[in-house]
Amino acid sequence: MIKELCIKAKLASIQMSKLSQGKKNNALYKMAEALEANSEQILKANKIDIEAAKSKDLKASLLDRLSLDQKKIQTMANELREVATLEDPVGSVLATWTRPNGLIISQLRVPIGVVGVIYESRPNVTSDSAGICIKSGNAVILRGGSDALHSNVAIGDVLRETLLSTNLPIDAIQIVNSPDRKDAEELMTMRDYIDVLIPRGGTDLIRTVIEKSRIPVVETGTGNCHIYVEKNADLEKATPIIINAKVQRPGVCNALEKLLIDRKIANQYLPVIIEELRKNCVEVRGDDITRTIIPEVKAATEQDWYTEYLDLVISIKVVDCLDEAIAHINKYGTHHSESIITRDFEKAKRFLKEIDSAAVYWNASTRFTDGNQFGLGAEIGISTQKLHARGPMSIQHLTTTKYVVIGNGQIRK
Amino acid sequence: MIKELCIKAKLASIQMSKLSQGKKNNALYKMAEALEANSEQILKANKIDIEAAKSKDLKASLLDRLSLDQKKIQTMANELREVATLEDPVGSVLATWTRPNGLIISQLRVPIGVVGVIYESRPNVTSDSAGICIKSGNAVILRGGSDALHSNVAIGDVLRETLLSTNLPIDAIQIVNSPDRKDAEELMTMRDYIDVLIPRGGTDLIRTVIEKSRIPVVETGTGNCHIYVEKNADLEKATPIIINAKVQRPGVCNALEKLLIDRKIANQYLPVIIEELRKNCVEVRGDDITRTIIPEVKAATEQDWYTEYLDLVISIKVVDCLDEAIAHINKYGTHHSESIITRDFEKAKRFLKEIDSAAVYWNASTRFTDGNQFGLGAEIGISTQKLHARGPMSIQHLTTTKYVVIGNGQIRK
Repeated sequence: MIKELCIKAKLASIQMSKLSQGKKNNALYKMAEALEANSEQILKANKIDIEAAKSKDLKASLLDRLSLDQKKIQTMANELREVATLEDPVGSVLATWTRPNGLIISQLRVPIGVVGVIYESRPNVTSDSAGICIKSGNAVILRGGSDALHSNVAIGDVLRETLLSTNLPIDAIQIVNSPDRKDAEELMTMRDYIDVLIPRGGTDLIRTVIEKSRIPVVETGTGNCHIYVEKNADLEKATPIIINAKVQRPGVCNALEKLLIDRKIANQYLPVIIEELRKNCVEVRGDDITRTIIPEVKAATEQDWYTEYLDLVISIKVVDCLDEAIAHINKYGTHHSESIITRDFEKAKRFLKEIDSAAVYWNASTRFTDGNQFGLGAEIGISTQKLHARGPMSIQHLTTTKYVVIGNGQIRK
Repeated sequence: MIKELCIKAKLASIQMSKLSQGKKNNALYKMAEALEANSEQILKANKIDIEAAKSKDLKASLLDRLSLDQKKIQTMANELREVATLEDPVGSVLATWTRPNGLIISQLRVPIGVVGVIYESRPNVTSDSAGICIKSGNAVILRGGSDALHSNVAIGDVLRETLLSTNLPIDAIQIVNSPDRKDAEELMTMRDYIDVLIPRGGTDLIRTVIEKSRIPVVETGTGNCHIYVEKNADLEKATPIIINAKVQRPGVCNALEKLLIDRKIANQYLPVIIEELRKNCVEVRGDDITRTIIPEVKAATEQDWYTEYLDLVISIKVVDCLDEAIAHINKYGTHHSESIITRDFEKAKRFLKEIDSAAVYWNASTRFTDGNQFGLGAEIGISTQKLHARGPMSIQHLTTTKYVVIGNGQIRK
């Protein structure tokens, strides 16, 4: 079943690669309308998933992610409309040059082919991912969490019917409608049919995909993000930045997880920031020096420094100097987003250069690492690896390039 | 041992990323000199490998690849000098823009970090890969075939000593000096230390690396390349192109392996091209129609259509139309290099668009798919996958990007 679905997607991807921007945009606008028009049918399917989840005693936060309502469906529809407004990268000529032997070489941007997305229980990922893949001229195979199966199938049906009615290949969107883990594992071996696999979800999901996939993977999402308050920091700016990065939306990958503070300002600043964090219901953990200054702070373990909490928890470490901060972040971080708060230009420059992360900040919240916040448009994930794409992955990153070489009989000497 | 070597490479990569172009080029020129000055020592080590290989009855072609002489060492040295002349991609700013909230965002090119190269028994790969990685500001871990172990260690020693004498981190070049397969397998799990793994060699090596690696891999090299002679081809041009692509250097990945001929010209052209191929000592296999026209041709099996011969062998298939040619190539090919010979612009356009390969040609030999032939400079391989790099991989493809974001207290609303 999986292989058949992959073959269909591959065939559809060839049709997709030839479409004009206008045809793709038309389909996206029609998909948005169709989601709105069929919201009742989608909500009915979602209700089945919700009830099954409740009977399994799923955590409240998971139930919240799984639940759809009219407003969420509206947001999904608007996301599709927004993707339609983005510039189509397909077909653009990156460079053309002529060789001494007369060969004319061009490098063109072309769709990547078939994109696989493996995700958890947020049904909006189904339409968001489908929209980005269609816009970039690809076919997509979507394998969501089994808890959201009915919702995903309902959304997929609506989107696929729209492909049909707008004369796009229906198989360009494929929903794996099996909750069987073995089918997901089989999917990850389909290297001949799927060009890239993108896991969207928690650390465990991502690790499993990296372990089992034989298809090139773009690793996304895990963010053990740091802010380093250097001794010359403007502390009036530091506090709102830290609180924003930690508290505004703690469950996302660009939220702050670790705070490093220069030893020279630790006595002065630790009481201030810890009080502020506590006012915001954040549980504070700390290293030995932090706990010497504020004894009520719980001890952070070695494991804490590696952990992405995705919750109202933070660990604080006092460091002797910039070098220690950089070494700590490069060792324990996930290479996502890190910020330095300082007035010292030279220190900032070194931090920005030597921190090995997708996004490095000077005097700003880490929460800006996001396709829309960067002004790049909708994203399919935030890559924390260095291959292919790093940072927010937009439609451009679902394309590849191709060399087109035009000759008149050239042979190699 | 492997992990320790990886940790050292990672630390060295941080130093490498900060180096100026001048320092890196100086080291490359000194490495070239050092290879020349120490050629006797390298040839002595190579002799040990050669004798061991002879006693194991290694194939003549493998012995040829393994053997070094003064001229080959001279070529290795000149390759390093050529890499020194390439433009350094590191540090270039791809884009800078300001967001409405005042954040200034720049996207910079930075080294990828640690590159792993797993290859077979060509000792020149050791210095070629090291040169490209040093130039692009990376550290490199080199694991060559066990048959070339003494040669690789000798070359590695010379290059590492030069790093030391030019004040570059010695651990930026690491040779895995163990012939143990388990060590190679351990290397492929070192995801925390190695940023990209590049296999260079035959299909089996590449398949093993894809199967076992937990590090992102760039698949290189396998080339089951096709030429399609369309019915409106200028046959005067077709013959020299086909002979060049098949015969000039049959053991390389951009050499021709399969010939497709339009049915309308098969009666006329098959006798001509088959005679020409045979004059050039090429063994010809063919499908049923080919064998009806030229009965002495050996039958091509289903497996033949998938096979990269890397030898003076070719299989010929007669096709009904452009669509059949495209479908055949996309199904059986390895997405490397394919060429159409025709005078028909519309047919050429469709072929160039619909063939899903790294390089597509119109009226030229496939042998041009090569960094130097394209004018891109030295390459570390030819990528046949779509992620990160497609086609000849030059120093630019050993870099990644990083977002640098400068603020003055911005928080996310």
